Amino acid sequence: MSRRFSGLSRRHFMGAALAGAAFGLIPAESAGANDGDDPLPSWAKGESKQAILDFVARVTDEEGKDFVDEEDRIAVFDNDGTLWAEQPIYFQFAFAIDRVKAMAAQHPDWQTTEPFKSVLTDNVPGILAAGHRGLLEILAATHSGITTAEFAKTVDEWFATAKHPRFDRPYTDLVYQPMIELLNYLRASGFKTFIVSGGGIEFMRQFTEKSYGIPPEQVVGSSGVTKYQMGPDNKPVLIKEAKVEFIDDGPGKPVGINRFIGRQPIFAFGNSDGDKEMLEWTAAASGPSFMGLVHHTDAVREWAYDRNSDIGRLDKAWDEAVARGWTVVDMKNDWAKVFPFDT
Amino acid sequence: MSRRFSGLSRRHFMGAALAGAAFGLIPAESAGANDGDDPLPSWAKGESKQAILDFVARVTDEEGKDFVDEEDRIAVFDNDGTLWAEQPIYFQFAFAIDRVKAMAAQHPDWQTTEPFKSVLTDNVPGILAAGHRGLLEILAATHSGITTAEFAKTVDEWFATAKHPRFDRPYTDLVYQPMIELLNYLRASGFKTFIVSGGGIEFMRQFTEKSYGIPPEQVVGSSGVTKYQMGPDNKPVLIKEAKVEFIDDGPGKPVGINRFIGRQPIFAFGNSDGDKEMLEWTAAASGPSFMGLVHHTDAVREWAYDRNSDIGRLDKAWDEAVARGWTVVDMKNDWAKVFPFDT
Repeated sequence: MSRRFSGLSRRHFMGAALAGAAFGLIPAESAGANDGDDPLPSWAKGESKQAILDFVARVTDEEGKDFVDEEDRIAVFDNDGTLWAEQPIYFQFAFAIDRVKAMAAQHPDWQTTEPFKSVLTDNVPGILAAGHRGLLEILAATHSGITTAEFAKTVDEWFATAKHPRFDRPYTDLVYQPMIELLNYLRASGFKTFIVSGGGIEFMRQFTEKSYGIPPEQVVGSSGVTKYQMGPDNKPVLIKEAKVEFIDDGPGKPVGINRFIGRQPIFAFGNSDGDKEMLEWTAAASGPSFMGLVHHTDAVREWAYDRNSDIGRLDKAWDEAVARGWTVVDMKNDWAKVFPFDT
Repeated sequence: MSRRFSGLSRRHFMGAALAGAAFGLIPAESAGANDGDDPLPSWAKGESKQAILDFVARVTDEEGKDFVDEEDRIAVFDNDGTLWAEQPIYFQFAFAIDRVKAMAAQHPDWQTTEPFKSVLTDNVPGILAAGHRGLLEILAATHSGITTAEFAKTVDEWFATAKHPRFDRPYTDLVYQPMIELLNYLRASGFKTFIVSGGGIEFMRQFTEKSYGIPPEQVVGSSGVTKYQMGPDNKPVLIKEAKVEFIDDGPGKPVGINRFIGRQPIFAFGNSDGDKEMLEWTAAASGPSFMGLVHHTDAVREWAYDRNSDIGRLDKAWDEAVARGWTVVDMKNDWAKVFPFDT
């Protein structure tokens, strides 16, 4: 897979500039990509950007009281609505819809059973009403009886051919440039970056390394049960069963973090109420910690939605962020650029 | 935590020598720790050692047909009996026994209920009969209702005070020196090393980084259910519930590898029938792969056991290894040194 965003190679590249920043030889605003360059060029000058730069400078300053050992610099990111777009429906929904439609002929019962009925009739509100659990039901049903390798292949084929309805581009084009810069900046500062998302773990793993520089083993997500068995050619396979195993959303996120990572993060970014407990868990770290939320405020370049949205509802987590002084990113004003293709 | 065995620092140290080996400038036998040094000094000259050196040389030779990209160099290791000793009982059993005895007064029913009855009466065969599942039952029961942080503390305290009955040393002294050298050699050769063990994930994570240089996020193991909730001081906690979540043993190992790592390993080491499916899964990798078993043949320095042992039984996996030409390490003859404290 692509090493384009590899933390290791980036670290070698940026190490010197960041060490300089840590010791105040270079102002934090300009530490990063290379000598004197801004590590977050797509972030507009402002409170959000400054809060990130200040936090990273604090925890990497070996002389400071807030210094954090490199192995404890764990950063966790939600995916949908935090690292890439999630409108008009979660991208994994779009994938699932295409799969359901392709398999409908063999499943006549789907015509009358939710959430399949809504999928087959393009009833978007009906699909949304099923939420993350509905998505997992659809995934489990549409993927039961196939191997993990076969599933990976269908995901790759979909990403290679499917286009986003509004932008008429591959879905992987809709990643947020400012967040990619943030991921690179954190890795260059000795952080280990993880995805902790309600999305399906095997779906995400097909693009996270190429798109974000996050390898499969640093992706935490929802999952279905898999079963080991000998294949026809006496080669072992893992069969995906029609059973939900784990929902990595809400209170499930700290549980998933503990299970997969085994350390408490000191840096977390989300965008919805499903990230509330992950942010609370990060805020409970013994040392300094950074909690951030992406607030979708830009209907022109992306979308504007929060308290009343079926997708990525930001309500309780927003109130808690304001009350506790967490960073709330105003997409419209804090991001000079949203997508890599924006000019 | 200790960076003593850190792959990164080791890589900087050994990089040059290994690059040399990869291009044949230095014979593989002598590539490693530093210019011309043997990377596996505790391994006796022989087939097992040579098989390891040859495999690593092959997959790291950028000019060769068997070259494997660094991000795909995934190595998985069983823990009990593979990286440290497991006699006279699994070390986690010893920890569990101490916990059960300490809590017995509050659980009168344990006097008559297995596996607790056997634990309280020091009935070792009775305990062993319960196997890994029995151990997990004991762990779940003895640790339910406490937080993950409280559990970590009890494990740390136990390692700091408990002594192995035969060697009268801390249990963490009973790691295998040849395997520590192998872990360091693999990391220095661009491999990412993981533990995939039937042992409890939160128990292992308290010592794997210090003892093996394997961080918590690269430990896959059996686990109990944890629940997120607000603590008394309004600080969130994860409560360990009395419910087994996942048994990372036998067919569970490929499942755990897929869930936590998301890539197929190309290098795997185990020592018992519980590792059979993990080795088969590794052997099914699309490219070259290495499968190894530690055969306990040294009753003097360690222990001698295989087909008829209740702990770490090596029977079916041994037959398959012989039939398929996997590497079977003869501890007595292949290891010049077993424990770090051996002279």
